[in-house]
Amino acid sequence: MTNPLIAILTDFGLQDPFVGVMKGVIAGICPSARTIDLTHEIPPGDIRRAAIVLWQTLPYLPPDSVLLVVVDPGVGTARLGIAAQLDRHFFVGPDNGLASFIAGPASRQWRLENHALRLPAASQTFHGRDIFAPAAAHIACGVPLTEFGDELGQRVALPEPRLARTAAHRIEGEALHADHFGNILTSIGQLSSREGRLKLTPWRPGLNGGTFVEAGARLRLPSGERLEIVQTFGSLPHGGLGAVVGSSGLLEIVSNGGRAVDRLKIEPGARLTLEFAIADKGDP
Amino acid sequence: MTNPLIAILTDFGLQDPFVGVMKGVIAGICPSARTIDLTHEIPPGDIRRAAIVLWQTLPYLPPDSVLLVVVDPGVGTARLGIAAQLDRHFFVGPDNGLASFIAGPASRQWRLENHALRLPAASQTFHGRDIFAPAAAHIACGVPLTEFGDELGQRVALPEPRLARTAAHRIEGEALHADHFGNILTSIGQLSSREGRLKLTPWRPGLNGGTFVEAGARLRLPSGERLEIVQTFGSLPHGGLGAVVGSSGLLEIVSNGGRAVDRLKIEPGARLTLEFAIADKGDP
Amino acid sequence: MTNPLIAILTDFGLQDPFVGVMKGVIAGICPSARTIDLTHEIPPGDIRRAAIVLWQTLPYLPPDSVLLVVVDPGVGTARLGIAAQLDRHFFVGPDNGLASFIAGPASRQWRLENHALRLPAASQTFHGRDIFAPAAAHIACGVPLTEFGDELGQRVALPEPRLARTAAHRIEGEALHADHFGNILTSIGQLSSREGRLKLTPWRPGLNGGTFVEAGARLRLPSGERLEIVQTFGSLPHGGLGAVVGSSGLLEIVSNGGRAVDRLKIEPGARLTLEFAIADKGDP
Repeated sequence: MTNPLIAILTDFGLQDPFVGVMKGVIAGICPSARTIDLTHEIPPGDIRRAAIVLWQTLPYLPPDSVLLVVVDPGVGTARLGIAAQLDRHFFVGPDNGLASFIAGPASRQWRLENHALRLPAASQTFHGRDIFAPAAAHIACGVPLTEFGDELGQRVALPEPRLARTAAHRIEGEALHADHFGNILTSIGQLSSREGRLKLTPWRPGLNGGTFVEAGARLRLPSGERLEIVQTFGSLPHGGLGAVVGSSGLLEIVSNGGRAVDRLKIEPGARLTLEFAIADKGDP
Repeated sequence: MTNPLIAILTDFGLQDPFVGVMKGVIAGICPSARTIDLTHEIPPGDIRRAAIVLWQTLPYLPPDSVLLVVVDPGVGTARLGIAAQLDRHFFVGPDNGLASFIAGPASRQWRLENHALRLPAASQTFHGRDIFAPAAAHIACGVPLTEFGDELGQRVALPEPRLARTAAHRIEGEALHADHFGNILTSIGQLSSREGRLKLTPWRPGLNGGTFVEAGARLRLPSGERLEIVQTFGSLPHGGLGAVVGSSGLLEIVSNGGRAVDRLKIEPGARLTLEFAIADKGDP
Repeated sequence: MTNPLIAILTDFGLQDPFVGVMKGVIAGICPSARTIDLTHEIPPGDIRRAAIVLWQTLPYLPPDSVLLVVVDPGVGTARLGIAAQLDRHFFVGPDNGLASFIAGPASRQWRLENHALRLPAASQTFHGRDIFAPAAAHIACGVPLTEFGDELGQRVALPEPRLARTAAHRIEGEALHADHFGNILTSIGQLSSREGRLKLTPWRPGLNGGTFVEAGARLRLPSGERLEIVQTFGSLPHGGLGAVVGSSGLLEIVSNGGRAVDRLKIEPGARLTLEFAIADKGDP
């Protein structure tokens, strides 16, 4: 790899030098590596949100990129550190479920046990600096994953976000988190319409191109309110609420020119139901 | 261009992976490009503030830099995307006025219509990732602007910030936004003194070296309070209010060791008047 | 130096283009330089915190890195700008104490007086852009420090954080700042145990490997409450308070799964006492 890419995701925030220190460590080990920041504003310890963000991001990173992911509430405990070979990328981080939605059945992972590939004296509280950043840098500069330690049969896995067809005209999902613009991401998406039938595609690595658009569908909120599915923000009246197929292929609850999350009382995990006013041709 | 520079400005914030995803897209299309972040904390949808920030920034970017600017409340509507050839730089973004203060009369712009220079399936809500980042990357790697689509005769233009000589001893301007330190930027500046006369220089691309310093001038606030014009923060007593010629050549209302914006009730757009205690030699 | 590294630390925040503008200036002067951000969220004007953060960071930056540090409440006053040759790195910034904990007795510094190594027209309020960023870029591209101006005999120095053995079984220190996770950094650390004796190592450039772990020690807070010293967060009950040796070798007050700083009323500078329940073999 020439100028290999390391994409960094953490819950470290930006007020401390933690991210910069990891980049310093990387520069010292693999000077040709370039780093990009995915985000460092994952809420502290929110592994599930980080796993979803990785799932949104992965399709847009060049092949052979190394994902350096440190959301690590269990640092210093018995939880393992791993390096995983994904379909086209590498993952480095704690084995706590972070890779759940980007690793497929063919992914393999190795324990980060080789002390020669760490900083000399690893701390108990900052494995991002002492173990994970060095591992990512070594991988970027060509060290094979087998050098790090024993292969691990199974990763820790998070449950997938809810997405189920509960009736012929009903799909149930859940609210995920809200983004910077106050749009509320949902678990409903990854749907494709084949031969007139709706087909549910389970959460899995990579996005599919076919996203859900169904005439007359409505998204029912826990309050009972039903939102129209529209093509884009501008299709709503100013300040109006609706749902759009967002840039990750998931339905998002949005407000045109406002913040949906400030107008609705919807917490992550809240049940959402997609209802079809027009029947499709039968159950899949 | 070797190692071409792409400077990115958005209102995306840093809590989501939006900026990182754009950088991943860029790295995939033009691996030799380097990116720098101008800011991603433009208030959501605040095109005017982004246009002013671009105006402050442009003189300090190397020639041939590509400005990738995504403040795009109209994403998914009929608003166009454009690539513009500025005096020494390139602009890529929605055609909504963002380039108003950096594009000169000789600037030309082309519509971003060529689907071969986008990601395969453009979303309705994230043109930064699907259209603008790919365009910036292609330009950085040498694709001519004429490849993107038809030339566009006229860009959308924002009105310039208020700056007018309303009397022999009076210049009227307005408050712009406050910065991280609580300093309030104003539209008053770009003035040069020639042959003893004050000369108003209208807002235009690039900064001129001559900034305004006039003995005995005062800045009158909407409250009637008059602030002294001083050379730097340290010329004010601790906690004192005054105005300095800031680093962009514009008057700024500041407090030494404090935050002017927390002490004064001045909203963006508020009328400010520069009064000359000492007359200059006549009207220009 | 090929691809020299410039590590940037400021109190500029990220809402304005100040940091991006400095990177644009650097790219124009030394295109081969790479930049990394340590943090830009130093509280405005907090020189002491910036100095501590630099001390935490320095051991993890590659040799010959240039530290570009702009926390500069005295910008535009008579305070000097300097470039310093540290043990293995370079420092560029105002001479206001920022380098206190990273410069050793052998460090030398030069005044930034050479106008040919600045931007053409330096402002009174943004020396980061006009003087310091150009200096860092020139140093990264090989300009010797002696080119910048006269050597300066002495830097401005901050007092070291409190760390004193006040009795055979007592070490007194102080609270420093809290980090993103709400952990409160203390000045107590840098201790090594030699021949059964505790030895205080004063604050100085670089970290030593030996950090303090003493069976039965307790950290007494100003309230009289005593916290246990534990190996890592996970050794505490969920929500429990304790102290760990943090990643910089300093004791930190932490809460497992919570924010210590939100639970305790401890301001920076508050007196903290490390008490040994078990006596060591005598005074050093």
